[in-house]
Amino acid sequence: MRMYDIIMKKRNGEKLTPEEIGFFITGYTRGDIPDYQVSALMMAVYFQGMDEEETLALTMAMAHSGDMLDLSAIGGIKVDKHSTGGVGDKTSLALAPMVAACGVKIAKMSGRGLGHTGGTIDKLESFAGFSTAISLDHFIRQVNEIGISIMGQTADLAPADKKLYALRDVTATVDNMSLIASSIMSKKLAAGADAIVLDVKTGSGAFMKTLEDSLALAREMVRIGNGAGRRTMAVVSDMDQPLGRAVGNALEVKEAIDTLGGQGPEDFMELCMTLGSRMLMAGGRAEDEKEARDMLRQAVDSGAALDKLADFVRAQGGDPAAVYDPDLLPAATHVEPILACTDGYIRRIQCDEIGVCSLLLGGGRETKDSQIDLSVGLVLAAKVGDYVKAGQPLAYMHYNDPARAEAALERFHRAYTLDREPTCAPPLIHQILE
Amino acid sequence: MRMYDIIMKKRNGEKLTPEEIGFFITGYTRGDIPDYQVSALMMAVYFQGMDEEETLALTMAMAHSGDMLDLSAIGGIKVDKHSTGGVGDKTSLALAPMVAACGVKIAKMSGRGLGHTGGTIDKLESFAGFSTAISLDHFIRQVNEIGISIMGQTADLAPADKKLYALRDVTATVDNMSLIASSIMSKKLAAGADAIVLDVKTGSGAFMKTLEDSLALAREMVRIGNGAGRRTMAVVSDMDQPLGRAVGNALEVKEAIDTLGGQGPEDFMELCMTLGSRMLMAGGRAEDEKEARDMLRQAVDSGAALDKLADFVRAQGGDPAAVYDPDLLPAATHVEPILACTDGYIRRIQCDEIGVCSLLLGGGRETKDSQIDLSVGLVLAAKVGDYVKAGQPLAYMHYNDPARAEAALERFHRAYTLDREPTCAPPLIHQILE
Repeated sequence: MRMYDIIMKKRNGEKLTPEEIGFFITGYTRGDIPDYQVSALMMAVYFQGMDEEETLALTMAMAHSGDMLDLSAIGGIKVDKHSTGGVGDKTSLALAPMVAACGVKIAKMSGRGLGHTGGTIDKLESFAGFSTAISLDHFIRQVNEIGISIMGQTADLAPADKKLYALRDVTATVDNMSLIASSIMSKKLAAGADAIVLDVKTGSGAFMKTLEDSLALAREMVRIGNGAGRRTMAVVSDMDQPLGRAVGNALEVKEAIDTLGGQGPEDFMELCMTLGSRMLMAGGRAEDEKEARDMLRQAVDSGAALDKLADFVRAQGGDPAAVYDPDLLPAATHVEPILACTDGYIRRIQCDEIGVCSLLLGGGRETKDSQIDLSVGLVLAAKVGDYVKAGQPLAYMHYNDPARAEAALERFHRAYTLDREPTCAPPLIHQILE
Repeated sequence: MRMYDIIMKKRNGEKLTPEEIGFFITGYTRGDIPDYQVSALMMAVYFQGMDEEETLALTMAMAHSGDMLDLSAIGGIKVDKHSTGGVGDKTSLALAPMVAACGVKIAKMSGRGLGHTGGTIDKLESFAGFSTAISLDHFIRQVNEIGISIMGQTADLAPADKKLYALRDVTATVDNMSLIASSIMSKKLAAGADAIVLDVKTGSGAFMKTLEDSLALAREMVRIGNGAGRRTMAVVSDMDQPLGRAVGNALEVKEAIDTLGGQGPEDFMELCMTLGSRMLMAGGRAEDEKEARDMLRQAVDSGAALDKLADFVRAQGGDPAAVYDPDLLPAATHVEPILACTDGYIRRIQCDEIGVCSLLLGGGRETKDSQIDLSVGLVLAAKVGDYVKAGQPLAYMHYNDPARAEAALERFHRAYTLDREPTCAPPLIHQILE
């Protein structure tokens, strides 16, 4: 088998066999096949596409290119959840304890973020002492004991994907549905869960800006997951404005805590209920959505979900005091309202611009080595459809450095569009594929 | 300027500016831009194409990536000729002395061949002592003195093309008309001639198998040449069967000598007249084709063309005795006829297969370091349209190694198709672009 022939075949619009895909992934991971042949193949895939079978074969080959996590020492059905990411997306922080409190085992690998805020791990580090640098043994024991653990991605999961993504990133070959879907799913398959619930974001703050693209990605990933023998479903949810109200690491942790205490923003709670009910059904804990929602509501109302977060933080070396007293979380030295200049309805919030504001305040990483300021960010006071009068706050900016605040403020005003005509808030859940 | 943006732009079907093309060629030649970005761009070009302006800009950038030969020390209009190559293509060997004998200066750079026979340089080495490893001073002085020189490609001509072609060759991105045309023309432009006559071959023994593709390539190259300010014309000539009758290095030299003596095959002489008359017109030596043909005919009939070959061989250290006595050329130990098995008209000669026969006999290079056997090859006795009876010779095989002859014989029989119905010989000249 020769890589040249594989490139030529795809270039000419032919279908690659699983053997050819396996050959190229194995050879590339080992360093036997050079970058320049792989980038040519990726560009050919960009133009000619891959069908369902090719996409599944690619995903499986990448998943098997490194460690395949064995979670069989954990009893019951392990359910993983993955979000394609967005602004103010603190979903795991509230959802994982809620679902664990209902008896579904959460054994999750997570990463640090590169972008407008940190990733789940960064956010969790708002709890003093909390660490995700735990051993696989600790991880499995903890899940068996308290039903929840999140560890940093220390295992060698899907190294082929890592190498391939880095190459695609510098050769303008990222934008292909099969390649995007297989990249995400290869890591999920390698991470060992039995069932996967996907939160595919859509809108101006998401990787996929249009509903059409988001639906296509969701369908592709569901097909791959089920094709690989893992029960997989997807929720396509709105990211045309930030989720909830908080954007920024500790601010999002606080909002997650509020939500677990039943005091969070309605949209965020609704997303947790939608995803959580699928996780309970996939985990065999609930028969239907109504039963699942009742269980989740009960976990929140009884305080069991909040206690589960505290258990989780403690088990990984963190101080759980802030779970019950969020004022103990990292806090910025300045909090200032950003005021509306005119009366009007909020017609649009350019979601990614709000992300940039948080980044400018110091809440995100511009490069892999940037230090994150956990305390800074924004809390939105008005969202799409809300009416504000001139002089009323649109948001509160939490910051430590006035120079950074100034830069962020300028961006913020660009993000908000007000209108005299009333506007409806966009729907939160666009579609559910199950 | 970033290479990433250039790839993205071409991928999305946009037109690249001369600045962007120059940036990428300069950066790639220097090693600042990595192979993997360039191969992705080449694949994007394969799918999206390049228009006339982009192709010209690419050619100019590659031509200027190394030395631009300065031939201004040679008086008069310097005319170069380039063939896209084929089986039995010994055109330069006869054409160059004919044209030089008519007063057009021939200052040509040539290469060794990789394929079924050697290149022009290999063939010329059939004259004992002949060398193309001469200095640029020697080259220019010789052209001024006797009107003709062919030197090996020692100058650093179009290094960008060399690097790019090697990359395209292993990434399935060779087959694109703009890239093929710019690759050929960048070297021609760098080689310094004022006018260029192209011989674009078409058919089973050519790089371009169809007339449509050959015409497209011819048009593209003529556009580039004229766009670069060099008077350029192209003859699209047949390569659906070997040119003339001889295939093999010394055998082709002998056929060229026969032709210069007025005793060569008709098709080969006609091609020399067609190309030669364009060279005389481009070189300002003839007003029209009739005048040019008369001059060329006169150079042959008077013996001036043959004498020019002898002068040329002598000036580069070779023994010109073989020019007047071709029996002195390297000769194989065995010559054997290949006989027809049935009566019939030659309907088709699979031209590239005849090339492979010569290669199998030892007449070509399989790798860059192969040693060529100058003496071996084939002389065809029957060409398309000819009638043969069973037992009559189709060709004569010249060989030294019986085992090689056996392998070649098997291939030879596959190449010839006989038919009971009469067939016409294909036209030699398909089209002339001037």
